[in-house]
Amino acid sequence: MIKVGVNGYGTIGKRVADAVTAQPDMELVGVAKTRPNFEAEAAVRKGYPLYAAIPERSDAFREGGIDLAGEVEDMVMASDVVVDTTPSGIGEQNRELYRQYDTPALFQGGEDADIADVSFNARSNYDAAEDAEFVRVVSCNTTGISRVVAPLDEAFGVEKARVTLIRRGGDPGQTSRGPINDILPDPITIPSHHGPDVNTIFPDLDIDTLGVKVPATLMHLHSFNVTLESEPTAEEVKELLSDEPRLFLVPGSAGIDGTGKLKEFAMDTGRPRGDLWENCIWAESVSMEGDDLYLFQSIHQESDVIPENVDAIRAVLGRETKEDSMALTDERLGVGL
Amino acid sequence: MIKVGVNGYGTIGKRVADAVTAQPDMELVGVAKTRPNFEAEAAVRKGYPLYAAIPERSDAFREGGIDLAGEVEDMVMASDVVVDTTPSGIGEQNRELYRQYDTPALFQGGEDADIADVSFNARSNYDAAEDAEFVRVVSCNTTGISRVVAPLDEAFGVEKARVTLIRRGGDPGQTSRGPINDILPDPITIPSHHGPDVNTIFPDLDIDTLGVKVPATLMHLHSFNVTLESEPTAEEVKELLSDEPRLFLVPGSAGIDGTGKLKEFAMDTGRPRGDLWENCIWAESVSMEGDDLYLFQSIHQESDVIPENVDAIRAVLGRETKEDSMALTDERLGVGL
Amino acid sequence: MIKVGVNGYGTIGKRVADAVTAQPDMELVGVAKTRPNFEAEAAVRKGYPLYAAIPERSDAFREGGIDLAGEVEDMVMASDVVVDTTPSGIGEQNRELYRQYDTPALFQGGEDADIADVSFNARSNYDAAEDAEFVRVVSCNTTGISRVVAPLDEAFGVEKARVTLIRRGGDPGQTSRGPINDILPDPITIPSHHGPDVNTIFPDLDIDTLGVKVPATLMHLHSFNVTLESEPTAEEVKELLSDEPRLFLVPGSAGIDGTGKLKEFAMDTGRPRGDLWENCIWAESVSMEGDDLYLFQSIHQESDVIPENVDAIRAVLGRETKEDSMALTDERLGVGL
Amino acid sequence: MIKVGVNGYGTIGKRVADAVTAQPDMELVGVAKTRPNFEAEAAVRKGYPLYAAIPERSDAFREGGIDLAGEVEDMVMASDVVVDTTPSGIGEQNRELYRQYDTPALFQGGEDADIADVSFNARSNYDAAEDAEFVRVVSCNTTGISRVVAPLDEAFGVEKARVTLIRRGGDPGQTSRGPINDILPDPITIPSHHGPDVNTIFPDLDIDTLGVKVPATLMHLHSFNVTLESEPTAEEVKELLSDEPRLFLVPGSAGIDGTGKLKEFAMDTGRPRGDLWENCIWAESVSMEGDDLYLFQSIHQESDVIPENVDAIRAVLGRETKEDSMALTDERLGVGL
Ligand SMILES: NC(=O)c1ccc[n+]([C@@H]2O[C@H](COP(=O)([O-])OP(=O)(O)OC[C@H]3O[C@@H](n4cnc5c(N)ncnc54)[C@H](O)[C@@H]3O)[C@@H](O)[C@H]2O)c1
Ligand SMILES: NC(=O)c1ccc[n+]([C@@H]2O[C@H](COP(=O)([O-])OP(=O)(O)OC[C@H]3O[C@@H](n4cnc5c(N)ncnc54)[C@H](O)[C@@H]3O)[C@@H](O)[C@H]2O)c1
Ligand SMILES: NC(=O)c1ccc[n+]([C@@H]2O[C@H](COP(=O)([O-])OP(=O)(O)OC[C@H]3O[C@@H](n4cnc5c(N)ncnc54)[C@H](O)[C@@H]3O)[C@@H](O)[C@H]2O)c1
Ligand SMILES: NC(=O)c1ccc[n+]([C@@H]2O[C@H](COP(=O)([O-])OP(=O)(O)OC[C@H]3O[C@@H](n4cnc5c(N)ncnc54)[C@H](O)[C@@H]3O)[C@@H](O)[C@H]2O)c1
Repeated sequence: MIKVGVNGYGTIGKRVADAVTAQPDMELVGVAKTRPNFEAEAAVRKGYPLYAAIPERSDAFREGGIDLAGEVEDMVMASDVVVDTTPSGIGEQNRELYRQYDTPALFQGGEDADIADVSFNARSNYDAAEDAEFVRVVSCNTTGISRVVAPLDEAFGVEKARVTLIRRGGDPGQTSRGPINDILPDPITIPSHHGPDVNTIFPDLDIDTLGVKVPATLMHLHSFNVTLESEPTAEEVKELLSDEPRLFLVPGSAGIDGTGKLKEFAMDTGRPRGDLWENCIWAESVSMEGDDLYLFQSIHQESDVIPENVDAIRAVLGRETKEDSMALTDERLGVGL
Repeated sequence: MIKVGVNGYGTIGKRVADAVTAQPDMELVGVAKTRPNFEAEAAVRKGYPLYAAIPERSDAFREGGIDLAGEVEDMVMASDVVVDTTPSGIGEQNRELYRQYDTPALFQGGEDADIADVSFNARSNYDAAEDAEFVRVVSCNTTGISRVVAPLDEAFGVEKARVTLIRRGGDPGQTSRGPINDILPDPITIPSHHGPDVNTIFPDLDIDTLGVKVPATLMHLHSFNVTLESEPTAEEVKELLSDEPRLFLVPGSAGIDGTGKLKEFAMDTGRPRGDLWENCIWAESVSMEGDDLYLFQSIHQESDVIPENVDAIRAVLGRETKEDSMALTDERLGVGL
Repeated sequence: MIKVGVNGYGTIGKRVADAVTAQPDMELVGVAKTRPNFEAEAAVRKGYPLYAAIPERSDAFREGGIDLAGEVEDMVMASDVVVDTTPSGIGEQNRELYRQYDTPALFQGGEDADIADVSFNARSNYDAAEDAEFVRVVSCNTTGISRVVAPLDEAFGVEKARVTLIRRGGDPGQTSRGPINDILPDPITIPSHHGPDVNTIFPDLDIDTLGVKVPATLMHLHSFNVTLESEPTAEEVKELLSDEPRLFLVPGSAGIDGTGKLKEFAMDTGRPRGDLWENCIWAESVSMEGDDLYLFQSIHQESDVIPENVDAIRAVLGRETKEDSMALTDERLGVGL
Repeated sequence: MIKVGVNGYGTIGKRVADAVTAQPDMELVGVAKTRPNFEAEAAVRKGYPLYAAIPERSDAFREGGIDLAGEVEDMVMASDVVVDTTPSGIGEQNRELYRQYDTPALFQGGEDADIADVSFNARSNYDAAEDAEFVRVVSCNTTGISRVVAPLDEAFGVEKARVTLIRRGGDPGQTSRGPINDILPDPITIPSHHGPDVNTIFPDLDIDTLGVKVPATLMHLHSFNVTLESEPTAEEVKELLSDEPRLFLVPGSAGIDGTGKLKEFAMDTGRPRGDLWENCIWAESVSMEGDDLYLFQSIHQESDVIPENVDAIRAVLGRETKEDSMALTDERLGVGL
């Protein structure tokens, strides 16, 4: 059993904890939190051992009636791998702690690429993570792009990719984030930083990305263009993509017109939190104009990186092949719609 | 076993179907749908027998690869009770069908009060439904108000209630509804129709309501004022309300500032679809100024009427006492946070 | 001519500058700004002398090609009255500067009440400002409430007021403010601080207020209840209110259903920036239930305090009577729809 | 003087009426409206003669206290040109009326291209409109694209254009339109109909467009990619574009981050209704990657077609050259920021 600690119990952290718990070859050591809020309360209900992320605040937990299993150092010590899911920039500060206990750690996409030896996407470069000290699971957007680029490049060759990322302004619980009524070029400069991030996975890919921010919370939307090196039909592209377990082709007959109904479908099928771990590619949108492929995909920012984190745990320890790990992760989570 | 058919499989219907399935004394005959969309697909995955709500469209289901168990008439015939969860106004058209088969039916709050012999809220008038031909489970807002008024009136006496209902513009999947960036008095005239609807449950209650519509999808918010006949302390009011199983007092210590985090908490605790069957009353908001009680409560429009529908099924057949039915419903659904 | 300096050139400051310029008895000394952004550019186009609010940043203006008339101290020195329209809390820091030059100053509603000798609303307590060193023009919400309470109290007597303030999350240009999809009790505790703020104008008024925040930018909406000491008809109340020049009764026949169309109307009639200096009371909403008056009013947060600032300038210098000042202000701005 | 009638007095119609009134060579015959609402009231205040668009409803105007100058037929008869600004599809129904009186008419972008002899964008094909019976001024989005494509094609040659149109869900006054919290691929199929619409202006242009809809009301945002036939520097492209009077390059130094602040700037400079007749191109976004040009532009859907309508009036009558008409229109409106 691989012992896993989760440091930072927010949007990503709580999902990683649940996903680790669902794996047959992993055991959740516990989760480290900074404050005894509703998320701590929910962790307690699930029986997850809680560690104080900031030792000085241990008292606050006690006052909130919450028993602690220890401090974050204890958790790191007891873990074979730590998944750091703290806010952007905090991971950087935690790195020394993991190094001190010689515990391999995974960071998330909010950290700079150079925090880790390797940036990771299971489909694209699983083996690169083996024996790394630190691995960075790339962001929700980069994960979403990589999953599409990998099979396209293998099957048809990618000459150039151009992606406009229409990003949700904040997650559903982030009440202080805007905008309320605006469409923001963000960043205003082009190309955005997302392209270079994809290049941490595909160093030779010619890709330009443009970032936009809008007043919505459920999912991102990618307006995707790839100039291919060959000219498959749209049907051939759809077939290729539908063979990828972490891509879901939203059928035209489903009557789903946007992310509200997509998440409704996810909840109707019993998905925990209505999570959509798969890229949701609108089947009707997949089209070829000459050698230009176009498609729309919706990316559930809160959950698409979860299976990737699970795989990265195995990858960094050299357990399982890529195929076996991805299949096991998907089966245990229920990936595939 | 009570045999229950659900006519109209949308936001309310699918939740009623799940809730009925969870009851030990009920059996879901099936659900009637108009179109073979993603919701039909999800129903099939759950193994719910599907009936064609509009017989002429049966072919569309077949073409969509979905097997039908029959037509809506077959479902009505096989049911002891039908729960009609079609859109507002359609219930009225279906009434004759239920009468024809002598099947008691429940309607929802979108129908006019005179569609049924009795308007229903379990906490307030369970027994009134016994042996009725037709029962109307009141709307999400009226349910939310009734659950608070009932205990207050019993314990302290209600002199007058004034409630501003700040309503979500549409449900999360209703992409064509607005407003996008407005705060609408809706209806502009005061008092709104909500007060008279509460009077179908509490005929003698002096209540004035004001309706507002805003660009949000998750929950309604009630700004609640009740002039009481006595002057309890805010603590006494909170104690009273926290004893009611279908009221959830959101603790100040939880760090929950709005409906986004409330639903997050619901999902963290494993609630299906993140449903909040309880009125969510902000504990810190409960306050007394003289004999004026004030509080804020958030009402999950998609789910608060679900336990009420389950109870109404038993009530109309004269099975179980109010207390036993409510306790059973709550236990099986997992009501209580 | 009264020489007026405006310190802080943002949402409120630029409107005050325009309004001062429109008065026959006032002269705009200039406006003090911190940064050479688009608002500075627009001020230059209007020919408003620009002063550096933060002397160390003077260079930035020069680099931006903008000529400065001097530093903020120069402006204060040259002014008979300064209107401080800096962000909440900054006014407090500027007070010593005004005192140093013995220049009476007006502060805005974002400052604590004790920053000034008197809190001000022209209709309610014009004369109280005479000879004050510092005057605080109350907030947009308090202004909106005061304008309704004053005539009601005079004509019918106010026993108790209860107001739910459904506030816009941010102004149209404030892209970083949320919420995106939530209805927030804000503050969660009741009563909110707005009631006590109204009491700075009406010390004996019995008023409870409740605050809510929603994802909209155009205007606030007040859900207003006043228990009166007498029982006029709704028609009598409407007549009373329609006689007040700073109240606009939105006629039912206008086909205006919310703040989007209200602002559209303001722009159609040529209002600068689509400003609505008047409380916009929905005529159809005004209603009496026993001695309870109800109404909805929309308050344009960006502009309703502008006529009040103009009047306060005269009031603090003891120029003009209340009636004359208000009439002059209204005529020059074009108040009254 | 060219006598101009405006049929349909809504978002576009009222702006056309104002713009016509501002021209030295035009006279507004009047405007035809269907209902005596707030827009009619505003037209009366401006002294615009009002005609009943639907004769049977004339009484409603009289009851609303509004004097009519006649019926729509009278207006058509008295006009040299009619600008039809009725909702999509209604223009089609009005065509016979204009033909009957032999009055050339302009239609808007909501009508099908084949309603008219020619689709029109002043910069691109002014002369094509001369002597046409019917002219269609293309939509806000097509206008926005054409204005950029024309100079680029002339200067550098356009090999292929790919544009993602992130469209506002509704205009600010359209309270019933959504979505509230979603990012909709709209249409889901690619390419969208916008590309073919651009081809009505540039028949040989290779262009693929993708449509998206989001919860915002102020402006559209275009994520623009053009593969050029040559490789200018970004600076050269910016110079070219800044020479075009109907393109506004938003300077990076302005501190404008989105459409809220853009419209704020427009209002600060005194623009009526805060209108932005120019494409607003974010200067910092203009960039070249190889032969790929990228840029973001915000398009004010309510007003960018207004100068085009004014020019089309002259073009259809064969008055003025393209250069003279555009210069006159721009000068009288105040185009250019
Ligand atoms: N939310 C998303 O959409 C998303 C998607 C993909 C990747 N990411 C990345 O995942 C990481 C986490 O993001 P998130 O959205 O889960 O953030 P979050 O704010 O939801 O959760 C972070 C948690 O870490 C806690 N925390 C703060 N400081 C800490 C410390 N010193 N030690 C331990 N815990 C601490 C916070 O209290 C919070 O509970 C970031 O790098 C982010 O960029 C986020
Ligand atoms: N959504 C809410 O927030 C909410 C809350 C409380 C009560 N209600 C009430 O519940 C009722 C249902 O509302 P909903 O939100 O679930 O609507 P919905 O639109 O989500 O679902 C209604 C379903 O009925 C189907 N339908 C339409 N015509 C039908 C017919 N003739 N026969 C059978 N099915 C038909 C529709 O296809 C749809 O699937 C309404 O009376 C509504 O007012 C809704
Ligand atoms: N915006 C509203 O809706 C509204 C309504 C009524 C009252 N108010 C109150 O008016 C005041 C101003 O609010 P606003 O909305 O105009 O804010 P704002 O942020 O739009 O404008 C404030 C301006 O002051 C400038 N500034 C910052 N520090 C300064 C300093 N030290 N010296 C000079 N200028 C400085 C800022 O750069 C900005 O231009 C606040 O007290 C606010 O509470 C605002
Ligand atoms: N609003 C935009 O963003 C925009 C931008 C560019 C082009 N357009 C196009 O301009 C046209 C008008 O759009 P709009 O946004 O101004 O619509 P609108 O709804 O704001 O205005 C249309 C007006 O026409 C009136 N009307 C309806 N039927 C009529 C009839 N039979 N005769 C006369 N008047 C009638 C309506 O009452 C309304 O006042 C459409 O073709 C639209 O596609 C709109």
